[in-house]
Formats: sequence, C-alpha cells, structure tokens
Amino acid sequence: MYFFEVAYWVMGMTVTIEEIKEQPMALEAVLEELEDKANQIGSLLSGASSCLFTGCGSSYYLGLIGAHLTNRTKLPSYAVPAGEMIVSPDSLPAVSPDVVIPISRSGESTETLSAVRELKERNPGSQVLSVTCNEDCSLRELSDVLVVSREGVEESTVATKSFSSMLAAIEYLSRLRLDGEAARDNFRGLPEDSRKVLDRFEKLSKEIGRRTDLEKFVFLGTGEHYGLALEAMLCVKEMSLTWSEAYPLLEFRHGPKSIVGENTLVVVFYSRPGGEKFDDLVKEVNSIGGETFVMGREENMEGLESNYRAEIPVRPEYTDLSLYIAPIQQLGYYRAIGLGLDPDEPRNLEQVVKL
Amino acid sequence: MYFFEVAYWVMGMTVTIEEIKEQPMALEAVLEELEDKANQIGSLLSGASSCLFTGCGSSYYLGLIGAHLTNRTKLPSYAVPAGEMIVSPDSLPAVSPDVVIPISRSGESTETLSAVRELKERNPGSQVLSVTCNEDCSLRELSDVLVVSREGVEESTVATKSFSSMLAAIEYLSRLRLDGEAARDNFRGLPEDSRKVLDRFEKLSKEIGRRTDLEKFVFLGTGEHYGLALEAMLCVKEMSLTWSEAYPLLEFRHGPKSIVGENTLVVVFYSRPGGEKFDDLVKEVNSIGGETFVMGREENMEGLESNYRAEIPVRPEYTDLSLYIAPIQQLGYYRAIGLGLDPDEPRNLEQVVKL
Repeated sequence: MYFFEVAYWVMGMTVTIEEIKEQPMALEAVLEELEDKANQIGSLLSGASSCLFTGCGSSYYLGLIGAHLTNRTKLPSYAVPAGEMIVSPDSLPAVSPDVVIPISRSGESTETLSAVRELKERNPGSQVLSVTCNEDCSLRELSDVLVVSREGVEESTVATKSFSSMLAAIEYLSRLRLDGEAARDNFRGLPEDSRKVLDRFEKLSKEIGRRTDLEKFVFLGTGEHYGLALEAMLCVKEMSLTWSEAYPLLEFRHGPKSIVGENTLVVVFYSRPGGEKFDDLVKEVNSIGGETFVMGREENMEGLESNYRAEIPVRPEYTDLSLYIAPIQQLGYYRAIGLGLDPDEPRNLEQVVKL
Repeated sequence: MYFFEVAYWVMGMTVTIEEIKEQPMALEAVLEELEDKANQIGSLLSGASSCLFTGCGSSYYLGLIGAHLTNRTKLPSYAVPAGEMIVSPDSLPAVSPDVVIPISRSGESTETLSAVRELKERNPGSQVLSVTCNEDCSLRELSDVLVVSREGVEESTVATKSFSSMLAAIEYLSRLRLDGEAARDNFRGLPEDSRKVLDRFEKLSKEIGRRTDLEKFVFLGTGEHYGLALEAMLCVKEMSLTWSEAYPLLEFRHGPKSIVGENTLVVVFYSRPGGEKFDDLVKEVNSIGGETFVMGREENMEGLESNYRAEIPVRPEYTDLSLYIAPIQQLGYYRAIGLGLDPDEPRNLEQVVKL
C-alpha cells in the first residue's frame, strides 16, 4: 500500500508535496509584493463603488472568497466564472464594476483573458487589478496593477502554494480597505503560522489520507469559507480522483445529506458566525453514520465532539484563510499515494487551459 | 435486478413515478394561476430596478435559473441561498432589492422564512413575490403576491412535478416582462409538450437508468441551464445515492474533468449560445473515455456525435426549461430501482427542513 510513497521518496518525485511545503516562502514573497504595491492598490480600491472578481477553477474559487470578503468591507462585490462571462454574458447581472479583479495562476487562461477584454470594452472607465503567479503573462498588458506571487509558481498541475499565496493577496485587498497602510501589520507572522500548520497537521492529514475505507468527502463552509470548501473539494478530487462535494453550510441539509453513510467524511470549516448551526450539523452528520472533521479556531469549537479536529492559529480577521487549505492539500496528497495514484500528474488535466 | 421494479408496480408503491407523470397537469394548473395573477405580477415587476431570488436546495436552484432569466430581461438579479443569508449576511452584496422572490415548495422552510423577514426589515420598501406549492403556508403572510402551483404538491421527498411547475412560473415572470399580457400565448401547448417528452424519453431514461455499470454522473450547463444541471445532480443523487456533480459548462475543464473515465456519463444541457464550445466539450469527454448524453433543440445539435441524445420540442424562449428535467427525473427513478433503492424514501431526508 505504501509502495508508491516509498518510491516517490526514493526517486525524488515529490513535486506536489515539496510545493505544499513551500507555502511559507510563497506567503513571505507575496506579502513583500503587496507591501510594495500597497499604495497603488489602495488608491485603486478607495474610489470604487463595485467590484467584480473573475477566474476559472481554483482561481474562480479565490474570486468567490474575494467577493465575500470585499462585501464585508461594504464594497458590493460579485464573482463570476470567466467561462460564463464569455458563453452567457446576457444572463449575468448588468453591473458596471469600477474594479475588475481577474485571478489566474498562469496569467494565460483563455477564458479569463477574454472576459477581461470584454469587461474593459463594456466599461471603459473600469480599472483592472490582477492577481497571478506569472510575472511575464498576457494578463499584464490588460492590467492597471498586477500583483505577482513570485514564489507561487508551480510545476504541479494541482494548485497548492499558488492557491494559498494568491489567497493571502486577496485577503490583503480587504485589509487594505479596512486598515490602509497598517494592513501589513496584520499579516505579520503569517509565514510562521503557515509553517506551524504544515508541521502540526501533517500526521493527522496522513492518517486521514491513508484511510482508503473512506469513499466520500464533503466540504462545508459559509461566506468566504464556502470558497475554501470548493477548493478543498477540487484539490481532493484532482489529486485522488475521489468522490468529493462542497456546499454552503446549510444547503447540505436540503438534499446532499442523503449521501452520508459510514464511509463518508464531512469536513466543516468553522467560522465565527453561525454558532450552534455548526454544532447541530456536526452532531447530525455523526448521528446518521458519517464521520466529521472540523477546522477552525479553538475558541469557536469548544465542547464540540467530532472525529477529527484541526485548530488553526488565531490571527486577525481576513488574514488566516490560507492556513485552512494546507492540511487538505496534505490529505489529498497522502490519499493519492495510498490509492496508488501519482499526485503530480492528475488524470486528464493540463496546467493551463487554453481554448 | 428488476425485483424492486416489479414489486413497486404490483404493490402500487409508485408515488415518485406517478408524480413525475403528473407534470402536464401541474403545468396546466400553474399556467392558469399565472394568467389569473398576471396583472398583479406585471405591475410588481414593471417598476423594479433590482431583484433577489432566494430559497434552499432545489428551490435555490430555481432562484438561480430565475436570476439568469431575469437578467436577460435587463433587470439586474441575484440568487442567494436562504441559509447563507441568515448565517453570513455581511458577506453578501449589500444590494437593496426592490423585489424579493422567495421560492419554497412547502412555504414553510425555516431558512427561507427567516431570510424574507430579514430582507423586509432591511429594505422596508421592497415587495415580496413568492412561489410555492402550498396555498396555506407561512410564506403567505410575508408576501405581496403569492403564486401557487396547486397541482405541484407532492408526497415524494424528491422534487419532481413541484420543480417543473414552479420552474414554469419562474419563466413566466420573465416572459411577462418581455411580452406583457401576451406572455400566456407563449406558454400555449406546454402541458402537451411535457406529455410528449415524458412519453418520448421514458425508454431512453429507463435504458440509461438501468445501466448500473455507470458510476459517475456529471451535469453541465451555461446561464440558466446551470441551475438545471444543479437540479439534475441533486435529483439523481437523492433518488439513487449516486456520485453526481454539476458545473457551469466551461468550468468543467478546470479540474473536475479529472474524474472522467469509462464509467462516467456527462450530460450536457445544450442551449443556443456557446456554439462550438459545446461540441468541443462533448468530443473531449468521449476522447478521454467518458460517455455523453446531450439534451437540447435538434437545430442546435446537428452533426453532433454523442452516446445518448434527447431532442426537446422547439418552443418560444424561456418557456421550455421545464421540459429538460423530466427525462433526468425518470432516469434517477429507474436507476434507484435498478440499484434496489426506494426512490420514494431517500436516505436521511425530510420533506421540509425546519430548524
């Protein structure tokens, strides 16, 4: 069963796990970039009255998280998959966003580039603030400001450090709106916390990842944590070709709950709002035969009984989301190995989707 | 293998399949209701400048479809799960909708009722146009206009005729904005078309439903067809406890595609926009070993090669969506029977979710 694992270590074919472990460096680098460009970003966002995030796949999920966070700063924001913007533009709200925020690891995704061109044409006054890992990309020439996560560049197809470092950038935008120049103080210590999380939960992630008796994974979150749930779903699916689903917290009861059985793990991203709604859900999943894995701040999960539990370091609001995804990336990796799959080369996929 | 099927017929325990077959009657009844209330609805919508749909599960998916259609009539619209509105309200766009459109089969879902109360409090000027199957429900007293699909009432937990009849009501709202009183002419013949679809595709749905070698179902659509894809995903999941997923058309390539193998059926809801993007996707799924099932108008699918195909009767725009879901409901039903499950009693679920 662990043949692949041994083989990977011996042969050094561990691109994905190496990249997962490089998250602290990627975070450090992107925070430097954000400090450098804080003034540009701040002035671009300060005059905005509406904001549109777009991207594909993991980058769209980052956009969803961004829209939820930005709404909390009282700037009305939306996220739309870039593909929908080019195939069915008339079915989307006819908003004229002041700021368009495309997200693309490669900066080369055809749909995202087309969506930005289309949006610029429709709203000539709008400004473009892009987030990418690729300094010299086609997205650059469409952007007023380009935020680059230089150490987020990956060989792996599945997004790991690219996701968490671009996520920190997305969080930074909201903190800039709330704190101005003081934003950077709130991110102090994030790379160290990332290292702590990677070390602290590797054993747990490996334990769950190796449980090949588990057949179904469900990820639940509310608000910005729903975007995290989607990324967790996709990460586990791509790496280990596993049945995985994601829903907004309470939507789970309206049908999807039917799949819960003894081979099901329901992962709940705990967040402050929601209170007993989280606890009730966890109890219910256990009562119908599923297992539960909760992630959140210790203070929010007091007295809660679950099968697995990961306590995320306490940090200022909107600066800790990137810490939630690393244990799931590790879990997906070890599950792939346990199932005899190569996490470096997920089936059917390419790194960049060009049409 | 067909023991359950025989048993159900002999014992008359066929609530779900009976209700699937009652769709033409449910459509006829809801169209009468809509004609009766057309003036009220029309005047409520005519002055609106923004519109918010909400609901849970299948009703939220109806809201998503409604938002896409209403956007096409140039009225900016959004859909939000009712649960998110009560757990994470601050992470949602701070819009002040003139019209709130809650959808609830029972008119009693706790989250939907709470969301409507909350929205009315925040926007005292807004009006509430509700869609339900239950005449005497708690939603009534919160509504300015209540559209009731009287024949949509179901014994079954899985939504079938309730979904398609409330969907026709949602489509009617958009046609009213486009055509005024002439809207009803565009819906002429819909019950007959529904009967045709049920008869024409029962054999095909049974054939696919009985293919228990298929392990994964993926449903894809763009714009308003994405909401249909979500409902198809949920319907098959609830009835047959099957691995089923749904994505906006082009999002599928950005990761989820990895699950496609020889036991995978990808169902594509074809719609006019998109053109060759649909064809390319269908070809790609077949080339990586999956099977394909396309549904749409004959004229849109000319020359396309797929494993299965259902040609939906040609009708005026925004009056044919309810025809797409019936073959999937039949498929889910026959798959449940084939797997030895009772489609009338999906695991873990209740008809109405009250918190």
